[in-house]
Order: sequence, then structure tokens, then C-alpha cells
Amino acid sequence: MQQQTTYSPLTLITPTAKMSAAVHGGRAKCLQRLIRLDMPVPVTVALSFDAVHDAAKGRLPDMQTLLAPFGDDPLLSVRPSSQDPDWGGPGAILNVGMNDARHAALTQTIGVRQATDMYLRFIQSYAIHVARLDPDAFYLPDTPDADSLRAMLETYEQETDEAFPQDVAAQLSEVLRSMARAWDGTTARLLRQAKGAPVDAGLGLVVQAMALGVGEGECGQGVIQFVDPATGAPRVVGRYISQYQGQELSRKSEGALFLNRDPRGPSLEEICPDQFAQLLSYGDLCRRRLREEMEVIFTLQDGRLRILDAIRVQRSSRAAVRIAVALAEDGIIAREEAVMRVEPAALSELLHRQVDPEADRDVITGGIAASPGAASGRIVLTSAAAQASAARGEPCVLVRRETTPEDIRGMHAAQAVLTMRGGVTSHAAVIGRGLGVPCVVGASDLVIDRKADQVKAADGRVFAVGDMITVDGTTGQVLAGEPPTLEAALDDTFQTLLHWADDYRDIGVRANADTPADAQTARNFAAEGIGLCRTEHMFFEGHRLGVMREMIFAEEGADRRAVLDRLLPMQRADFQALFEIMAGTTVCVRLFDPPLHEFLPADKAGMRDLATQLALPLPEVTERVQALSEYNPMLGMRGVRLGIAIPEIYDMQARAIFEAMVAVRQKDIKINVEIMIPLVSAMREVELMKARLDAVANAVRTKSKVDFVYRLGVMVETPRAALRAEDIAGHAEFLSFGTNDLTQMTYGLSRDDAGRFMSAYVKQGVYAEDPFHTMDIEGVGELVALGAERGRRGRPDVALAICGEHGGSRSAIAFCRAHGFDYVSCSPFRVPVARLTAAQLTLLDPDRPSRNS
Amino acid sequence: MQQQTTYSPLTLITPTAKMSAAVHGGRAKCLQRLIRLDMPVPVTVALSFDAVHDAAKGRLPDMQTLLAPFGDDPLLSVRPSSQDPDWGGPGAILNVGMNDARHAALTQTIGVRQATDMYLRFIQSYAIHVARLDPDAFYLPDTPDADSLRAMLETYEQETDEAFPQDVAAQLSEVLRSMARAWDGTTARLLRQAKGAPVDAGLGLVVQAMALGVGEGECGQGVIQFVDPATGAPRVVGRYISQYQGQELSRKSEGALFLNRDPRGPSLEEICPDQFAQLLSYGDLCRRRLREEMEVIFTLQDGRLRILDAIRVQRSSRAAVRIAVALAEDGIIAREEAVMRVEPAALSELLHRQVDPEADRDVITGGIAASPGAASGRIVLTSAAAQASAARGEPCVLVRRETTPEDIRGMHAAQAVLTMRGGVTSHAAVIGRGLGVPCVVGASDLVIDRKADQVKAADGRVFAVGDMITVDGTTGQVLAGEPPTLEAALDDTFQTLLHWADDYRDIGVRANADTPADAQTARNFAAEGIGLCRTEHMFFEGHRLGVMREMIFAEEGADRRAVLDRLLPMQRADFQALFEIMAGTTVCVRLFDPPLHEFLPADKAGMRDLATQLALPLPEVTERVQALSEYNPMLGMRGVRLGIAIPEIYDMQARAIFEAMVAVRQKDIKINVEIMIPLVSAMREVELMKARLDAVANAVRTKSKVDFVYRLGVMVETPRAALRAEDIAGHAEFLSFGTNDLTQMTYGLSRDDAGRFMSAYVKQGVYAEDPFHTMDIEGVGELVALGAERGRRGRPDVALAICGEHGGSRSAIAFCRAHGFDYVSCSPFRVPVARLTAAQLTLLDPDRPSRNS
Repeated sequence: MQQQTTYSPLTLITPTAKMSAAVHGGRAKCLQRLIRLDMPVPVTVALSFDAVHDAAKGRLPDMQTLLAPFGDDPLLSVRPSSQDPDWGGPGAILNVGMNDARHAALTQTIGVRQATDMYLRFIQSYAIHVARLDPDAFYLPDTPDADSLRAMLETYEQETDEAFPQDVAAQLSEVLRSMARAWDGTTARLLRQAKGAPVDAGLGLVVQAMALGVGEGECGQGVIQFVDPATGAPRVVGRYISQYQGQELSRKSEGALFLNRDPRGPSLEEICPDQFAQLLSYGDLCRRRLREEMEVIFTLQDGRLRILDAIRVQRSSRAAVRIAVALAEDGIIAREEAVMRVEPAALSELLHRQVDPEADRDVITGGIAASPGAASGRIVLTSAAAQASAARGEPCVLVRRETTPEDIRGMHAAQAVLTMRGGVTSHAAVIGRGLGVPCVVGASDLVIDRKADQVKAADGRVFAVGDMITVDGTTGQVLAGEPPTLEAALDDTFQTLLHWADDYRDIGVRANADTPADAQTARNFAAEGIGLCRTEHMFFEGHRLGVMREMIFAEEGADRRAVLDRLLPMQRADFQALFEIMAGTTVCVRLFDPPLHEFLPADKAGMRDLATQLALPLPEVTERVQALSEYNPMLGMRGVRLGIAIPEIYDMQARAIFEAMVAVRQKDIKINVEIMIPLVSAMREVELMKARLDAVANAVRTKSKVDFVYRLGVMVETPRAALRAEDIAGHAEFLSFGTNDLTQMTYGLSRDDAGRFMSAYVKQGVYAEDPFHTMDIEGVGELVALGAERGRRGRPDVALAICGEHGGSRSAIAFCRAHGFDYVSCSPFRVPVARLTAAQLTLLDPDRPSRNS
Repeated sequence: MQQQTTYSPLTLITPTAKMSAAVHGGRAKCLQRLIRLDMPVPVTVALSFDAVHDAAKGRLPDMQTLLAPFGDDPLLSVRPSSQDPDWGGPGAILNVGMNDARHAALTQTIGVRQATDMYLRFIQSYAIHVARLDPDAFYLPDTPDADSLRAMLETYEQETDEAFPQDVAAQLSEVLRSMARAWDGTTARLLRQAKGAPVDAGLGLVVQAMALGVGEGECGQGVIQFVDPATGAPRVVGRYISQYQGQELSRKSEGALFLNRDPRGPSLEEICPDQFAQLLSYGDLCRRRLREEMEVIFTLQDGRLRILDAIRVQRSSRAAVRIAVALAEDGIIAREEAVMRVEPAALSELLHRQVDPEADRDVITGGIAASPGAASGRIVLTSAAAQASAARGEPCVLVRRETTPEDIRGMHAAQAVLTMRGGVTSHAAVIGRGLGVPCVVGASDLVIDRKADQVKAADGRVFAVGDMITVDGTTGQVLAGEPPTLEAALDDTFQTLLHWADDYRDIGVRANADTPADAQTARNFAAEGIGLCRTEHMFFEGHRLGVMREMIFAEEGADRRAVLDRLLPMQRADFQALFEIMAGTTVCVRLFDPPLHEFLPADKAGMRDLATQLALPLPEVTERVQALSEYNPMLGMRGVRLGIAIPEIYDMQARAIFEAMVAVRQKDIKINVEIMIPLVSAMREVELMKARLDAVANAVRTKSKVDFVYRLGVMVETPRAALRAEDIAGHAEFLSFGTNDLTQMTYGLSRDDAGRFMSAYVKQGVYAEDPFHTMDIEGVGELVALGAERGRRGRPDVALAICGEHGGSRSAIAFCRAHGFDYVSCSPFRVPVARLTAAQLTLLDPDRPSRNS
């Protein structure tokens, strides 16, 4: 605020005028830059934020001073110049200064029709936007003639009891005052604050001499840019319209010309080759000197080129990457700046197929955007149907009330997943993101009618099994039919940008990957390793589920061991495949975590099948299933608790891991293996497990005659594990904070049940954010920080990480950097976002050590 | 250890000998006290712990020194003297010194048969306990004669290749060595450590001249005590047997006399009136000078009284209270000491009817002792059957796999509750304790067969509905039939002791009480108020459940309000009754907490009934029930989350509370009311609720024209609420830590699901204790301490408390005292225990301020 006192409220823009975007707004500052580059910008005066603020209060600037640079009888445009163009502002008002005399003069130079049209348009916009009269009374006539002009002037007089102002200074005063006041309107304020503007964001205005665009010789207005806004590729894009001025360039077709030479019709390049060449050189100048791709607004007045304005090219995420990389590769900006210029969140759009933004959307319902990307397919209601559909080669969308671990195969087979229940970290959402399958969850408006094989929408529409729908996991929409989509955009520039990012970031990024397919995705996205390999999915695949169930029904340890021995080679093969894909990196395997009842059927039919399969009486099966059911599975017999109660499972897993290590070692593949124990709440759990795992490792070493090392760590996901981290770190070489479960327990809030009220909670400001979406720094974060500090106290070189859904988020990465963590681990499709975010945070960190690279 | 060097290893016990229980053991020290009181104790030498320790290593004391005080040819007894008599020790060995010569001499004085019997018994005990020979080879003959004596001596020689030792010193050496070694045996060590003995607990021995108890004139041995061990009432209890020596006094009937004059037969009082009077005076002397009720072991030798030993009277819990109070009332001990002498846990026995300890127990199975007391009744398997049974006036035991809130009425109606699932803090256990209904949970051996209306035990026995069983909630046993029981013992001495305790304790004790009946129990046990009144039970009673369900099915806020208006007068009446019972104290009402699905039927039949009742189609009811079901109800839509989502419930409750306050105020009853918000995880929840409650309070004030105040507080039961306690205390006048839920969330462990593995976990030392039973100081405790500290930072005078199952436990009370909490709140039947525990902790606290009272 202080600095503003040194700026004049009115500044004639010249190359040396004292100006700043923070005082005069971005447009004014940009115009000064264009002038400095010797572009033919009409005379322009900038009003500072303070001047506009005063105008809103009725203290207008001195009109004589303001008008002096424009000469006698000027025609002026007034345009907004807010600090950030994204923050909006009132619409421009053109042709200020039109009056009866000017109209009469212009009929001589540009013709009656054009002059009358200009006057009519000015009266209209003045009446509506400045005098705030009823727009219905000021429609433009079909034929701009003397009658209609008289009629409109009379209407104005009737509505205001005053004649239409003829004095330029009077007009301009009112225009400035009305634009200044519009900025203070509630809607305008809310809109710009939603875009991040501060409460006291200021508005500047620029008053510019009109370049008419109508009249004798080649006159007109155009807009030109030099890259494709969708792809970022160099290309001339824009329009030029002869005998035209105004802001509806894109809507008007009469008089429109191509810019480049085009077989379909006349082009600016042909008609005015010199001016066109001039424009190209201006584009290049902007790019090099403004260090940005600009869209240039220009007029021709009797063939004379005028540059009215230049604004940053609006661009798709894909284009943003390409433009930033190209600018850096051309030496125009530094690589650091290219890395800073791309919004990390935008990257995730590029990783997935998208519904074409141009396409019509027939929205059935909206849910929570749980896994990005769009895919179409025919409705199926069961996992079995999804698999059958996949076998037939038909794309399908799996629609379920909610998914369970048994649905994994169906989710693999489906193009997209849609559920009625659950939130952003529900089973469907987590697995969907892991698999990269587009997913919308919590579409609670939909009702599945299994008997009728239908899905009913809230608007009464019914979609049958086999009907085509599209899941847009980026927006959360469910669409009828199959709108056109755009491909993922993992092109060279994308890779280049991320490799630059890797040069700057100072925290590791690993992926959560459970299957070889996940691991391959992680590798493709250059994850530095796997930070969380959940092994339970391995027990659902193929006929493993049957073996698993047999194990659950085994009476004694020895029987269980025998059954598990049959799973051993499969697990070993899983790990071996994973290790081979991740060769040269680190893989952190989390031991079996879920409660056993997840592997048992929930319905009568399933239990009957199981009874047949196991050759047991149905009541016995029913009873066992019941006995294993839990009130709060989240807080039940799972994780290390199972590891201690039924040690045979972890023994088998450990053996599979170690034997796989030996096997890849024999192929000369290097891999660092970490084993992570889930759901720890007491040090002794780790101590017991460590003894057991070491014993298995020794047995494998002895048998294979291959020596190997592994690192043992703990997934810190109960508040108690965080509190006791000092003890625990005594037995753990790394601590990986599982913020999903930690959030659930810290809040006492099940992520699967929170969906029903979370949005209302956030809306009422009870929670500032959904803590499953944005890490809760004040609560969960404190536990993580405290756990990290205590962990280090127990073992100074303990490795620290966050895994889980938060891992890839900006706030979590910032948190991890601040607390000196070693890496974050996130779903494979978040890896590029996390790499870029980590680089940006490092570059923004004033404390970062300077680099030589 | 250091001090032992100043004691001699062998000490002839005299009034002035330098002795200590920590060096010579309790028995030796007690014998010295008897000698100081001039009682006729035979010559006794004490061996110190060090001497015995040396003997075990083979370094025996000097026999000549040891034997010197006993004269020539002594007959000796050797008895153990551990520091605490509870720690056990080897059995006594009598008549050391018996040999052929002594046998021959004794035949002259006490007769052949008696002398031979003595010798045989000595050889037998020496052979078995000292020489460690096969007991089967050394049985006592029917007729103790010369042949049998010769045979036993030969057997001894055959087994050992040595003649039976004839030298007193040799015999005594071996006896000492064998007793010393027995103390080091594994079993003996484990047994005493289980009773709290330290690893290096020592054993002393006392060597005493035998007082024969056989021979001419009135000879015999007896034991006498002066209080009833079951009730603690003054009464002579014991036995005397003529011509007898040894330790099987209670088993032998031949020659047994009554002590007091008795119409059923001869008594010591009649035969030896002087000696009897002497014994009574010794009893009184012990009581006054040893400050304890003692059991005295004595012999008569030709009418001459000898006191062999005196030990603390074994006593029931009831007797312990009466004895301690009587000693204090007689001025023998201070009131503080009386308060310290009673084990608080023992009190809970007195609050409940018990199975007579003398009764035969036909144990069906064992489970977890969840709510103390014993009750018998006929088996019922449903709540409805329990209520029907109660209506017929027939006692019943409700047997369920597990109980749910719907079973409350059945639990009220039943004499006892037995479940197959759940742990010490399961629903059945918590409610059982609250109601004071004996309860055994987790009796997982039993199987309910609903079709056959039977319960099957693991041993194959089948108990049908209607069969009589007994639940012993004190031991956790389930018994067949109806064994005799003893009444609860809330007599005057019990009340006296607790009032003394109240004079000393420095922390408040409130009760968790949900109903007027609970409140009356709390009042009877002198709770200082209600620390936790759970209001949800109020919604299950009578036809309220139906109204509640209607509310759940209401579509809009207005409809819900209309339905809730029908509950309002009932809730108001509940609170009014509660306030009247608790007049003059404070009642803390916790607002509605459980998830709504607890009020809905779980089975098809229930849903059909509900559909009929609500006149809704069944599918709609089914769908709604399904929609409300939760994966993890513990972490779901309950507590303040419901309060925010469906504010009409809390509004109604608040109105009922405030109107009840106004109503009792109009009866001139004083009551302090606190309102507590459950399951808070963020400050804003409290802020929103406070605004809402204040609005209701204002409306009630305006309408009633009565002014009143209430205090608003928060139940801190999520880790996040503890972490954010500073913020939260800004809006809360008190913080009550709900350690049940806080434990569940800190460990990530559902109390209802933990039962399946908790005992194994504790057995393996994974958890030192069941954290639902004993508060986890290191984990949960840290959160509580941190919450308390931050709460005070946010509001220096914030009141702090613990409510929940831990509230009455010693460790929790100690914790609360250490952190300056205001009170603990526990189930009504724990209140006396908590009062006594708090007093003891205060008395033990070296920092407690001295008191004038």
C-alpha cells in the first residue's frame, strides 16, 4: 500500500513511465511492455487501483488531465486492468466520446450506416452498463438508421429525464465511476475471491484511443496467437474481421477472414502480407521479450496496424507443458521456471483419456471424482459379468453399490467403475486409482435394481444392463452414451518437464503398486521404487481365493501351513515379477493386512458353494463365517494382529519374498527389499515379528546358500504407533506413515462411512477440508511429526515416509519436506504430479541449498 | 542387602535380640513379638535369609551353636519364615531329633503307641521331604507297633543304603538343607512371584523346641482366633485336639474338643478354664499390641500352656472391612490405617450376592468375569422371553451370542446375562455393570442352538431353555443348577470405612448413570454426582423405539421435529426424575451418541413389522435400513456428527433438559446441569452446537420466565480432540476423557472385536495388559495428559475428568490425581471401590498437604 503513494493516479503509458502491475494492473503493465517493444499501441492512460478506488467513492480524477493526451474530440475505450487477469473485472466500454457531432462527422468518413451503428452501440452499452437502465428498452435495431437512433436517444431521455450526455468528460466520468463500482459488487467479489484474489484486490483501468476498425481502405479487427491452445504446437490461430470493432470477434462471421493462406477462402496473409508478417514478428517478439506465448489483439485502419492489447494465451494442460518446455529449450526461460509454470494438478489430466471438452454431455448424475480419466462401456452389475464382458472383448462399466475385495477381478476387467456409496478413499476409489481405471463413487442418486437388471437415475430415466454409459472420473460425472474422448498425452515434452523436475526436487517419490501391472505403470512414470506393495490382492486372484478359504477353515497351524504351501509358489512368482520390473530400485512389501472375513462369502449362496467346496456341513461354514465377522473391521483382527495370531501367513509371505529375492539375484538383478508390518500399536508386535522374519530369512539363506539382506519397517497407522515411535524404531529401520488409517483413527471416522456427511461437514466449515483428501496438518500432521521426531530419537537414521492417498498431495509433500522425510509414496498415476510438486516446493524453498546443476 | 551384614545368621529369639522381618522373615519376627508380650513360647532360634541361602549352597550353619540353646537330646520343629506369609515356603518338619534312643525313652513317658507313632511320622516325613524318597514306600501303618517301625527303618536303609540317621545334628543339617533348596525350586518361585514376591525374596527358618502335645495329664494342640473369618464379628473360632501334635488339626476328629462351652460336647473352656481364660487374654493382647486379629497356635503339656505361633487371621473381604473398622474404633489403629488396610477390589465382592465359597460348583464353562455378583435363573434366549419371564415373576438368565442396544429391556428383566462373544468392555459387559446385573461374556465354548432352544457346552452337555443355571460374574464361571449364595454386605462398617475414605481423598468420584435406577444406586454409594448420563438408552424404552424409528424415516426437518415433539415429554420426565434423585449434586448429560441404525431392525421379520407400522412398502424400509448401515459403526455417523446432520435430535434433548431444570427448580430442588457433546473431533463442532444449545436455552428461559445456567463440555474420545484440546476448551467449560473410545481409536482396536485375541496378546506379552481393562498410560495416557495440558492452556479453569470403564481403576485414579483432574466417573457399582482407592492414593502421596481433620 505504501508504495502506491509514489505512483501518480493517472499515467500516460510511455516506455519510461513509472508503472507496476501491483498498482496499475496486469493489462496496463503489459501495454507498457508492448510499447517498449515499439509496437504501435494507441495512446493509453492507466488509472491506478487507488484512482479507481477513489472513483468508486465518487472522487473522480481530473478529467482535463486524463483527456489531454487524447487530443480534441477523442473516441476512447475503457478496459479493466486487475492485478491478475483471472480475477475478472467489468466489461470494456468502447467508443466513449460518441455524440451527435461525432456521429455526424463519422457519417462523412466511414458512412452513415457504420457511424449510426457505432453510436447506437455506444448508447446501448452506456444505458445498460453505466446508467443501469432496463436492457429490454435498448435493443439494437435491424437497420441502423436515423429513426432508430432518434428512437434510442428518446428512450434514454424518457428513462433518465435527461438528454443523452454529449460531453466526452461527462461520459468518461460516468463510465469510470460505474466500472469502479461494479468491481465492488458482491458477485464480482465472490467470483474473484474464489479464484484466489485477496479481499482488497484492486482494479485498475486503461483508457485508450479507439482504433476504429471501420472506414476506408482495409479496416478491421483481429486476434492472433502463435501456438495451438489445445496442444501447444506452433501454429497461427485466430480470426480477422473486416470493417469490425468490438469484442464479439469469435461470434461474428460476416467479413471474417482466415489468417494464414487457406484454400477455403481469403486470408489476411494474402490481403495484407506486410501487416501479417509484422504480426508474426510481434508474436515472436512477445515470446522472446515477454517470455510467454501471447494472444495479440490488433486493428487495421486503412491498412495501418495497431496493437490494442496482448494477453497470455489460454491453454490446455497439455499445451501448458509443451509451451513451458519449448520456451526453456529455446533459452527464453530457465528450466526452473518451466518447472514452476506448470500446475501439477493439470498433469493428471494428461495421464488419462478425457471426454472431449467440446462434446455434448448428457449427464445422468454426479458423484465423487475418485479416479481420473474417462471411459465408456456397457453397464454390468457384477464382477462376473464384467469378466465375461472382457472375455468377449466388449468394454463395460462395473456399476456396484460399493465394491469389496472380491470385486477386484471385475474392476480389472471393467473400463470404468461406478459406485453408489463411499468417498474419495473408499475401496473402489483406492483400487480404481491404483489400477488407473476411471472411477466415480458416491453417486447416491442412482438406485440399482438387481431384479430388473436396471439402474435408475434420479430424473426417472432407467438404464438397463448392456446400455452404454460413460464415467468421467476427472469431473465426477456419469454420462449417457459414448461422447468423443481425447487420448492421454504422455509425449516427449511431458517427459522432459518431469526429468527437469527430478533434477530439482529433494525428496523421493515412490509408488504404491500391488501388481506387476501397477509396477509397470510406476516404472513408466519414473517412480524411484515401490513405497507400498499391498499383498492382499494377491490372495484374491484366480483360484487363490479358494486356497485362502481352505486356510481359514484349517483347524491347526500345521494344516494351515500345508494349505499355505500351495500359495507359496504363486506369491513367490508375484514378487519375482515385481522385483524384475523394479530392478535397480527398492520395493517395500507390506505384509498381509485385511481381516480374514473379507475372503469369505457374505451371502447364503456363497456359503453353500463354499460348504460344497470344502466338503463341510453348511451350518459349520455359516457358523465360522459368523464367528469371523466383525463389528468394526477397520479396528479388528487384521494386520500384525493376524500375523501374531496366525503366524503361518506371514511366514509364508516372508518365505515367498526371500525366495523371490534369491531367484532374481540369480538372474543378476539388483533389488532392495523392505518388509513393512501393518497396523502396529505396540513395540512388542514388531519385536516378535522381527524374530520370526529373521528366522525365515535364515532358513532361506541356509537352503539357497545365497546371502541377502532386507530392511524391516513399520507402517505407522495407529495413533499409538506414532506416540510410541521411539520404542518401535528400536526394531524398525523405517517408518512409513499410513495417513489413510491414521486419519480414520485420529478423527474416529471411517472413510467408508464418512461419505454420507463429509460434503455437508465441509460446506458448513466444520472441517476446513475433507481430511481424506487433504491431509489434516493440525491433527493427523501433529501425530506424524511427533512420530517422526520420536522415531529419530529411537534410531537417528530411521527412514521416514508417507504412503497412502495423501502421499502425492502438495500439502503432504510440503509437510514431508519440512520434516525431513525421505520420500512420499502415492498411487502410480499420482507419481508425475508428485514429482513436479516436489520440484516446485524445493524451488520455492528459500532455505534450499544452491545447486551446481 | 547391606543391613543383613549386621545381623547374625543364627539368633536365639529373646525380647531384645536384634531381629527384622526383612532379615529373618515374618514368622520369626512375630515370635519375638509374642515373647516380648511374655507369652510362653518354647525356645526358638531364627536362621536369617542369608543363612538359609548359604544352606541351600551347602554351607550349613555351625550345628553346635544352633543346638546349644535346646539342651541335650532336643526334639525340634523347623518352620519356614518368609518375609510375607503369603509367599509360602516349604512345609514344617516336626520332631527332628527322634531316633531309636529317644523313641525308647518316650515309650516310658507317653506310651509305646504314641512314641512309635511319633517316630514313624518323623521317619516318613524325613524320607519323603528330606531324603526325597518315593512316598509310596513310606505309608503309615494302621497299627504303629515295633514291627512296622522296624519295617520302615529297613525300607529307609534299602532305599538309601544308609541307616536312618540317629544324630540330631545330622538330621537337622539335612532338614535345613532340604528346606533351603525347596525354596529355590521353580514351582515354588513361580508361585510366590505370582503373589508379588520379588525375584530375590528370601526364606528364613525357625527352629523351635517341640511342645509335644502328647503324654500325661491334659496334652494336646489347638488353634484359636477371636473373630469370625467370614464376617469379622467377635467370636471364638478354632479347635483343640487332645493328645495330638502336628499340622492337620482341621482334618482330625478323634480327640477334638470345642473351644467355648458347647451343649454338643466337652470344651476346652470346661476342661481347662484357666488356660482358656489365658488364651482369651493372649488374643486380646495380640489385638492391642500387634494391632491385628491373630490366630494363635498353642499346645497343652500336662496342662501347661505353650504358644507355638501366631498368624494373621485369614479373612473374607467382609471381615477385613469389619476388623479394620473395629480396630480403628477401638483406638488401636488410626482411621488412615483402617482405610489403608482394606483392598479396594475386595469391596466389589461386598456389593453383590456371591456363590457361597463352601458350595459345590458344577462348572459348565468359564468366560470373562464382566459384571460381578452371582445370580441364578432359567435359561432364556431372547429379550422378549426374559421380559415374559420377569412378568411371571420367574428369575431368568439371558443367554445371547452378544447383546445389542435392543436387548436392554431383556437385560433389565434378567437376573444375569451370559454371552458367547465380546470382552470386558463389550456392550453386555458395560450395560451389565451399569445395571449391576451379574454378567459373564466371551464364553466362547458354548453354542446356542436357536432351533432346538438349547445351549450346548463343550463337554457335550445340553442345557435347554428353562433349565436353571447360575452366572458367577465375579469369577467368570457359569454353573449348572442353583448353588447357595451369600447376600451383599453393605453394612454399617462398610459405610463407616467409606466415609473415612471420603475424609482423606482429594479427587472427586462421580458415577456413570443412565436411568433413575442407576442414579439411585449411585446416590446409595455416595457418588458426588453423575459424570456421564448416556441418553440413548432413553430411546429404547417402551414405545419410544417406535417413535424413534418414525423419526428416522421422516423425510424433512419439520417432520422429524414433529415426531421428536412426542418424545420430548418422556425425555423431560426422565431428566426430571434423575435431577430429583441427584438433588444438590451435578448431573452431566451426554447428548445422543449412537448411530441411527442401532434403532432399526436387523432381520427380515423386524423390517416387515416396521414396514407395517410405518405403512411403507417393505423395499423402501429395507433400502433405508441398508442405506443407514455402516462398515465401522464405531467410526461412523454418530455423536456430534448426528447432532450437526440432524440437529432436531439435540434440540429436543436440550429442550427436555432445560425444561426439566425449570421443573425441579420450581420444586426448590437445586441441581447443577452439564451438557456434554460426544465424539468431537474439531473445535467448530463445539462452536456450532454451543450456538444451537444456547438458542434453545434462551427460548426455554423466555417461555418459562425462569433463569438458569448450564455448563457445556466435551467428551474427549477421539485422538484429534485431545490434540486440539486448546481450541476446543475455548468453547467448553469441561473436558471429560472417554477413555473407552479413546483407547479404541488410539490402538485402532474395536473393543467388541478385540475379545477374540486379547487374551492371547496379553499372554504373549504383546500388550502388558488388556488396555480396555487397565488404562494404557504410555499411549492413551499420553494423549489424555496432553489433552489436559492443552485444555488448560485454552481455558485455565477448565474442569477435567475421566469417564468410562477405566474411571474407577487404581491406575486411572492415580493418573488423574497426578494430572490434577477434578474427578473420575465410573459405573455406580465401582463408586465405593473408587472412593477407597482415591483415599489410599491420597494417603500414599508423599506430597499431599497435611490435614487438620
